[in-house]
Amino acid sequence: MQKMMQQVVCTVDVVLLTLQDSALKVALLKRGRAPFKDVQALPGGYIHPDTDADTRDAALRMLAQKTAIQPPYLEQLATFSGPARDPRGWSISVVYYALVPFDVIGQAGQADVTLASVDKLPRLSFDHRAIVNTAVQRLRGKSQYSSLPCYLAGEAFTLPQLQRIYEALMGEALNKVSFRRKMVEMDMLEAIAGEFSAAGAHRPAQLYRLKPELRDQLTLIARGL
Amino acid sequence: MQKMMQQVVCTVDVVLLTLQDSALKVALLKRGRAPFKDVQALPGGYIHPDTDADTRDAALRMLAQKTAIQPPYLEQLATFSGPARDPRGWSISVVYYALVPFDVIGQAGQADVTLASVDKLPRLSFDHRAIVNTAVQRLRGKSQYSSLPCYLAGEAFTLPQLQRIYEALMGEALNKVSFRRKMVEMDMLEAIAGEFSAAGAHRPAQLYRLKPELRDQLTLIARGL
Repeated sequence: MQKMMQQVVCTVDVVLLTLQDSALKVALLKRGRAPFKDVQALPGGYIHPDTDADTRDAALRMLAQKTAIQPPYLEQLATFSGPARDPRGWSISVVYYALVPFDVIGQAGQADVTLASVDKLPRLSFDHRAIVNTAVQRLRGKSQYSSLPCYLAGEAFTLPQLQRIYEALMGEALNKVSFRRKMVEMDMLEAIAGEFSAAGAHRPAQLYRLKPELRDQLTLIARGL
Repeated sequence: MQKMMQQVVCTVDVVLLTLQDSALKVALLKRGRAPFKDVQALPGGYIHPDTDADTRDAALRMLAQKTAIQPPYLEQLATFSGPARDPRGWSISVVYYALVPFDVIGQAGQADVTLASVDKLPRLSFDHRAIVNTAVQRLRGKSQYSSLPCYLAGEAFTLPQLQRIYEALMGEALNKVSFRRKMVEMDMLEAIAGEFSAAGAHRPAQLYRLKPELRDQLTLIARGL
């Protein structure tokens, strides 16, 4: 029994996604050692049973160590497994995905984190290309019926800014009136009293934020966008 | 490194769900050995890296060995982990859920498989109660916008039978006309030429089946039921 368990390599990886100029991007790091030395990879590593409370805790530890980012939203994506995905042996990777506003990545100031467009990925280590594609599919699917895209928007945002985020993820233009009605129905946003965007040529727009009690749970949109 | 990996116990468990008289039930087996000897548990066990192609393959092996059932639909639910869920050590369970028509469980004829109502679970081993609750939540959520409930219906079914399955999972009555329209929109069913239900006092009803090409993939309902 002990012999069989030795053969399973147990890791956690994180797909950290952000929007930069309406393009969906994933955070990558160049691996410092074999296997796949110098090839880009998702932030990840071995589970540490001595200190990790669970795989979610391990994912947060990887992000803190390797990207210095505490994501506002982190969800388990899926577990990838098999004998061929990691040359070190039969392996499991429990994968999480996280969404962060673009400026959070900038502020973390980790020079070795690079952002790659999910539609134009470089060569990736292990089965990380398949993992990124699965995460993007999940995010795009959930964008149609949940508050998930809000976690890409930062602390405060206008409704037009939020609509542009939904449109970027869904890949289609949305009707402004029905978008606003759905946001009201979801009852997840609150206007920030007295705060308006500096709007250049436009009329200043009200700033909103996610209601504090909803910051770590998704709100679903009845019947989708 | 080897030392850390030894400490992770890697298992797979399956939540096998069926509908019996409109009640959602889960398949349980009494454990034959410690830990939790003689306590009900989900079908599951250790990953066998020597022979399992991946965790899905391991899940199908557990079901075949312990319940003699090949489920028409099997999906990864989530991975549960931590130091406290299994007394043998820091553990991971990659959990799948499967849907089978009630008569399939009867035909498999495994005397030691018992069915428990998900709303009235007996004492369960490990964290299997939390796992069952997560699976039920996923199934009920997905029933609102997918073909998932069809896998509980058997090879051939009438539209009224299918509607009763959706209603049992969603816990609410559905409008017959709009239910039929949604089923047509999903374009996943085909009428079985010349086959009608024996209907007692009722007019015989057309029998339908899932289109063969859709048997192992979900169809989504645009904007939900």
